[in-house]
Amino acid sequence: MRMERRMNFKDEMEKKVTEIEAVLKAYLPKPEGYQQIIMDAMEYSVMAGGKRLRPMLMKETYLMFGGTGKVIEPFMAAMEMIHTYSLVHDDLPAMDNDEYRRGRKTTHIVYGEDMGILAGDALLNFAFETAVKAFEMEPESSLRIGKALRVLSEKSGIYGMIGGQVVDVKETGHPVSGEMLEFIYELKTGALIEASVMVGAILAGADDAQVSEMEQIASRVGLAFQIQDDILDVTSSAEVLGKPIHSDEKNAKTTYVTWKGLEGAKHEVEEHSKEAIDRLHGLSGSNPYLETLLEELIHREK
Amino acid sequence: MRMERRMNFKDEMEKKVTEIEAVLKAYLPKPEGYQQIIMDAMEYSVMAGGKRLRPMLMKETYLMFGGTGKVIEPFMAAMEMIHTYSLVHDDLPAMDNDEYRRGRKTTHIVYGEDMGILAGDALLNFAFETAVKAFEMEPESSLRIGKALRVLSEKSGIYGMIGGQVVDVKETGHPVSGEMLEFIYELKTGALIEASVMVGAILAGADDAQVSEMEQIASRVGLAFQIQDDILDVTSSAEVLGKPIHSDEKNAKTTYVTWKGLEGAKHEVEEHSKEAIDRLHGLSGSNPYLETLLEELIHREK
Repeated sequence: MRMERRMNFKDEMEKKVTEIEAVLKAYLPKPEGYQQIIMDAMEYSVMAGGKRLRPMLMKETYLMFGGTGKVIEPFMAAMEMIHTYSLVHDDLPAMDNDEYRRGRKTTHIVYGEDMGILAGDALLNFAFETAVKAFEMEPESSLRIGKALRVLSEKSGIYGMIGGQVVDVKETGHPVSGEMLEFIYELKTGALIEASVMVGAILAGADDAQVSEMEQIASRVGLAFQIQDDILDVTSSAEVLGKPIHSDEKNAKTTYVTWKGLEGAKHEVEEHSKEAIDRLHGLSGSNPYLETLLEELIHREK
Repeated sequence: MRMERRMNFKDEMEKKVTEIEAVLKAYLPKPEGYQQIIMDAMEYSVMAGGKRLRPMLMKETYLMFGGTGKVIEPFMAAMEMIHTYSLVHDDLPAMDNDEYRRGRKTTHIVYGEDMGILAGDALLNFAFETAVKAFEMEPESSLRIGKALRVLSEKSGIYGMIGGQVVDVKETGHPVSGEMLEFIYELKTGALIEASVMVGAILAGADDAQVSEMEQIASRVGLAFQIQDDILDVTSSAEVLGKPIHSDEKNAKTTYVTWKGLEGAKHEVEEHSKEAIDRLHGLSGSNPYLETLLEELIHREK
């Protein structure tokens, strides 16, 4: 029974990923002009696969709160562009210096380091250029769109994703306190997940209390997701994971597993995910697909 | 007489620069928290001096079209943050590899290359985070603010400043056609100058025809400004300019001077600037300070 539900869920998810990728493609700039190389690099970076988790959470939350329009689409594309630019800059030689991501050469390896920097800049800028298109699609929702832009920009910046990245980079190579580890996880991973559900809720017309409830649910999801990452690095195999295991140990990295032990970390995942699902269930008009998605994400094996 | 007007103009300009810097400072994030280093790097980069040309053009255009509110201020700050991030990333080792700018160490030299990349990202993101604050200041102007955001983001991106930068970087080291040179100048320098006056006009309530007229005036100003740069590289001295001269020749760079000769380039400056001033004069409610500012900018000696 559970097996069957998972099969259906997987089919449904694949269908949704395909739909999201069509939206992304439609909002990417057409490669042309003297500056065509940058459009090529943007497309190469965005269309590199991935779970499309953030736009999916955004869309599902939008549906859950009764959203029916297309105004969500530029924001879905914008969110994935922001996530992608952060990976492109993360992979640069001065940062993680990664030559491969998801089995493909990273952007700066294919297009050169200068274009890698510029492609990241271009994606971040184009994310806002894209989100702003929502004003023309639904001028009557200008205030909601303004609110959504505020959330998108705040959660992506120094009080959100960039802030987490800064501390992570700064503390690389030395042990960090539990408090700092939580800070990094909440900002680096959590902030964009929070923004995704908040933007979905705001654009569908959810009230402030509902938006704030979704933010807190997403915060638990982001944390559980990231702790599960730490656990998989210890318990999984390189074959299943598709990337080297025990990398945290090799890098002497503080993780939830080194901090609380394997059982402690597993307990945290259970606790945060249970709270997230319970609270999501408590919201009127809950979305069954979204509930299963969160469960699958948190309990994933890779 | 002309000397006297210039003295008054200089005093007035200094006062305006001080006012603009107070606005910038007020909108910069307070350095605090685990991620404080990034706020420090942002402030170091933005408060490094400079003409503050773009926010000044924005404010003067806003005044010229009858704007009286504070809603222009987050956009002034946002514009300078975008201009600044572009310099920070430009100076990186993989780009121009500059260790000094305006006599001070560049951001990545002081804070490290990783933080240089992140500080640029943070400034670009924070620019939008800042501009979006306008919605709360004047909710009744949401549609205008949405339009201003569209212009700001488009002119900063792949169809504006980044687009120009991409072609400039790509073509470094080989001669370019006149058409391509114009493209680079219009996008790399012109686009933000255009955005500055357009945002000022839009937020003051100018109509589409007026906004478009200001865009075209600014386009001439940007081009004349950049050609004057080419001229000064040949005719000025390192003492007056505060940077090495004949750098274009050394880098075998195509410029307006190599393309059209020194006299030809001077003629272009005259033509573009005359057209810009005439057209500005033709707009009702013109701003005398703005006219003098454009003249001074174009005919500057450093």
